[in-house]
Amino acid sequence: MLYIVGLGLGDERDITLRGLEAVKQCDMVYIEAYTSLLSFGLSSNGLSTLEKLYGRPVILADREMVEEKADEILSAARASDVAFLVVGDPFGATTHTDLVVRAKKLGIAVIVVHNASVMNAIGICGLQLYRYGETISIPFFTETWRPDSFYEKIQSNRNLGLHTLCLLDIRVKEPTLESLCRGKKQYEPPKFMTIKTAIGQLLEVEQTKGESVYSEDTLCVGFARLGSEDQIIVAGSMRELQLIDFGPPLHCLVITGNTHPVEEEMLDFYKIKRD
Amino acid sequence: MLYIVGLGLGDERDITLRGLEAVKQCDMVYIEAYTSLLSFGLSSNGLSTLEKLYGRPVILADREMVEEKADEILSAARASDVAFLVVGDPFGATTHTDLVVRAKKLGIAVIVVHNASVMNAIGICGLQLYRYGETISIPFFTETWRPDSFYEKIQSNRNLGLHTLCLLDIRVKEPTLESLCRGKKQYEPPKFMTIKTAIGQLLEVEQTKGESVYSEDTLCVGFARLGSEDQIIVAGSMRELQLIDFGPPLHCLVITGNTHPVEEEMLDFYKIKRD
Repeated sequence: MLYIVGLGLGDERDITLRGLEAVKQCDMVYIEAYTSLLSFGLSSNGLSTLEKLYGRPVILADREMVEEKADEILSAARASDVAFLVVGDPFGATTHTDLVVRAKKLGIAVIVVHNASVMNAIGICGLQLYRYGETISIPFFTETWRPDSFYEKIQSNRNLGLHTLCLLDIRVKEPTLESLCRGKKQYEPPKFMTIKTAIGQLLEVEQTKGESVYSEDTLCVGFARLGSEDQIIVAGSMRELQLIDFGPPLHCLVITGNTHPVEEEMLDFYKIKRD
Repeated sequence: MLYIVGLGLGDERDITLRGLEAVKQCDMVYIEAYTSLLSFGLSSNGLSTLEKLYGRPVILADREMVEEKADEILSAARASDVAFLVVGDPFGATTHTDLVVRAKKLGIAVIVVHNASVMNAIGICGLQLYRYGETISIPFFTETWRPDSFYEKIQSNRNLGLHTLCLLDIRVKEPTLESLCRGKKQYEPPKFMTIKTAIGQLLEVEQTKGESVYSEDTLCVGFARLGSEDQIIVAGSMRELQLIDFGPPLHCLVITGNTHPVEEEMLDFYKIKRD
């Protein structure tokens, strides 16, 4: 049996009773490391907090393990009960469809324990979830790679009056170019995109394309560490949000579409107040 | 202090540890009754299950109480710690923005405890959450009231290749027309829309409008009791899904847009198999 258990967004106390029950009865417990290191602030220290709560050792399944070594997880799940822990919801922003598909093909029963994900927790800012269009991802621009397909998606959303959730790039355990050439893997330090960088890239693309999809004056909402006790949520123009230090990861950004009065009333609580 | 605590989708075990901790320390605990009666299968019996878990009496805050008598909840929250429990996530499909806005205006601190909502749990079918467009609501048609503004929204979504989540109408504690005339309230029995009814209404609107936004052959996914142990998820054409008895509430429906191979692979597990 393979349990895919969502851990929610804040810390170890965001697991559900159902999830905890499942984890406690599993023979092996893996945790995905894509985003968990950043969002749960998991050092080796954080991992032991989880192990204490679960009464089980927790194996960090880093990116290579999940993508290349899923066989290990799956053969364990064939013989016994295995939990695979995922920050947020198992099918939220980061999806684990591939692992589930492979398990099902092998005839392994899969049980999903849902939890909050960034895709629904952003509702806290007052913008109604049913008034969002397509979600976009903003990747780190490099000298030579500056993909801007998100621009048209924001345009479509805003033409329909809809809000746009922007998921910001996270780079964990990226092999260095040098190490790839030498055939021996060394990794770049973890890197996450800040709201400031995201807005910088958005405005650069607007300047290149010039179709006035948004501007420095467009009302946005910036979220840092959403769902944690020290979360920061600020509503303001792109220009205003660019000046704010949102602190440690993870960050995400919402570009508003047309807002309704009830949405505006709630957004007001998050606006930068001037004297 | 006002805690707004999401309960998740299945049963009492879907509360998070953080949520349970908050509820246990509150002096008064309210639960919203809009959808909870249906989705948690809460009879008076179900309520006592919650009370046992929380070690607190739970007050059912029905629709009239939340909308008209929020003052009671808010003045309690001014003087002590009050929990307001919400099925799903506090800002999911049913929003509680109004209560939060009123609390904040009174200077009452509000703490939100997130959980899974139908808006992210639908990810389990394999259609990627970031490829959904605007969410629509399908209301019960009556003889004289057949609003069809959802049609254009589905059209916009499908033109962009995006999926559409359809939330289906729930009517709990609707005053009867007769009772409204007499000035003494009596209520209609609770009523929830099935997938079959929703598809019937969708096809009727398509026939009237005739713009070929979708048809009987359009691939959809039907969900019943999502997140519960007896959930049913079936992928098939509108024609196929109309023939299926999905059983008790709640139901919702997804109309697919363009699907990617990885989405299709997962959807296949939910398709009606023929010999």
